Amino acid sequence: MKLTILGSSSALPTSERYPSAHVLSVHERLYLIDCGEGTQMQLRRNKIRFGKINHIFISHIHGDHVFGLYGLLSTMNLMGRSTTLNIYAPSKYREILFSHLLDFDIILGFNIDFVALDSGDPVKILDDKHLTVTSFPLRHRIPSYGFLFREKAADRNIVKEAIEKFSIPVARIPAIKKGEDFILENGEVIRNDEITVAGPVPSSYAYCSDTMYFKRLSSFVRNVDLLYHEATFEAGLGELARITGHSTSTDAARTAFEAGAGTLIIGHFSSRHKDVQPLVREARSIFPRTIAAVDGTTYDVGNIDVP
Amino acid sequence: MKLTILGSSSALPTSERYPSAHVLSVHERLYLIDCGEGTQMQLRRNKIRFGKINHIFISHIHGDHVFGLYGLLSTMNLMGRSTTLNIYAPSKYREILFSHLLDFDIILGFNIDFVALDSGDPVKILDDKHLTVTSFPLRHRIPSYGFLFREKAADRNIVKEAIEKFSIPVARIPAIKKGEDFILENGEVIRNDEITVAGPVPSSYAYCSDTMYFKRLSSFVRNVDLLYHEATFEAGLGELARITGHSTSTDAARTAFEAGAGTLIIGHFSSRHKDVQPLVREARSIFPRTIAAVDGTTYDVGNIDVP
Repeated sequence: MKLTILGSSSALPTSERYPSAHVLSVHERLYLIDCGEGTQMQLRRNKIRFGKINHIFISHIHGDHVFGLYGLLSTMNLMGRSTTLNIYAPSKYREILFSHLLDFDIILGFNIDFVALDSGDPVKILDDKHLTVTSFPLRHRIPSYGFLFREKAADRNIVKEAIEKFSIPVARIPAIKKGEDFILENGEVIRNDEITVAGPVPSSYAYCSDTMYFKRLSSFVRNVDLLYHEATFEAGLGELARITGHSTSTDAARTAFEAGAGTLIIGHFSSRHKDVQPLVREARSIFPRTIAAVDGTTYDVGNIDVP
Repeated sequence: MKLTILGSSSALPTSERYPSAHVLSVHERLYLIDCGEGTQMQLRRNKIRFGKINHIFISHIHGDHVFGLYGLLSTMNLMGRSTTLNIYAPSKYREILFSHLLDFDIILGFNIDFVALDSGDPVKILDDKHLTVTSFPLRHRIPSYGFLFREKAADRNIVKEAIEKFSIPVARIPAIKKGEDFILENGEVIRNDEITVAGPVPSSYAYCSDTMYFKRLSSFVRNVDLLYHEATFEAGLGELARITGHSTSTDAARTAFEAGAGTLIIGHFSSRHKDVQPLVREARSIFPRTIAAVDGTTYDVGNIDVP
């Protein structure tokens, strides 16, 4: 599971930070989370293939999380896309999206399967070969949702030498990778753990933006390996954070701590914070494994270096 | 008059070319022409101040010319803008724009003065201290307009030494700059051309995108100093250009030649043309003073170097 952060600014982009957009890569499949203005340019700059994106998750209907979607859809269309695209977004956005495409005479050559988010509780919204995705409610000025991506346990890896030694037929390999023992022609049972080793440990990633702090949030992202949490403001601006429905550095750290997260990445920084290192230091006072998001950086979700 | 090209791609942006957006700077006032996705980031990257933009001209309602407008307006709003913003766009866009801002709960703290373009003939749409702007119809798949910016003749410059020599009072200087003679106390007349020199020569710039070739277009941009004209396709793709309502390199050159333009900049290149130098060579076979647009470059409108 690899995470590439394409944008980590809040509403006002800066010369270093684009508006919100993340790409999660799981076994060569790409999951786009939020789609701020310029997402398609950031995808190109990071050499990420548009055609591999089949799922787009939109947290809420504020421009800095959505204004790149029209251009991206239009580009996918011009590139000849025919595969269905799944868009998960607050229910209100369905009509806005389709009527705006119509305003621009954009006739898509592919279907959009729109999944409306409107629950006050966690909901499993995707379950495919490699992962499950759960949406959960955040607390912002308008309906806003977070997303939890949990990789499924991978198959065990078969030991190459064992195939030769026991003349294991190719047809048996998938079952053995799932954990079955292998029985020789003479009836002898070769135990699975003699011929396989454990596959890679599954990882998990959660995206929480935009939201103010609330106690229940940590229960939605319990034990996640990597938590991205907005930290629009420094710790001293708690009042402003509450009024605007955002979090401070220490709010984000508190949720990471209460959730028992592995690592915390903070982002969605207000443009007033030219240097975000003070916010990282504040967060580390509560949750030491904290780093700041950097646009254009790819993170190995299960294995992050914290200086 | 300085022109900065922020984007010169056609519908599919590339890693080197953003969608259409130009900024014309005339005596410290900025005029934005088209506003493709990412315009606000390109403005920041080129250190162009948002607050100095009071006029935005939209050629037509295709996404690659407009999708950056919502983000730009939202950013101007967050930066506390209060000055009226003038937007000139095809009439159909008025409702689309305002209803989309409403969809996103964007309540602007400044007025938008929307000027609807809908004439089949050239119309003077702006006349301020330093320039006039005329819109004129183009021929594209949907209503599309070009814009001609003509700088007004500048005041004459007073010769410093003359002020001292003839003891010219400060209060008289504005009239003298406009061409008045100066009369000494003894009644002697000092002719204006003895105490002033001509001001800078006024420049003119025209923007033609998107359009197919048509004979009458050259009459709209007669004798313009700098003509930006789309050249989506190479000369051999004339049939494709006609079907899609676009121009080839030689179409653009023909209009520049027929108009008696000073210099031609071609742009709006199809992403199929990785190298646009062949298009420049094709255009130069008809109109030698042709160059290719480069994103992030600023051109002195009246004084362009053609290699």
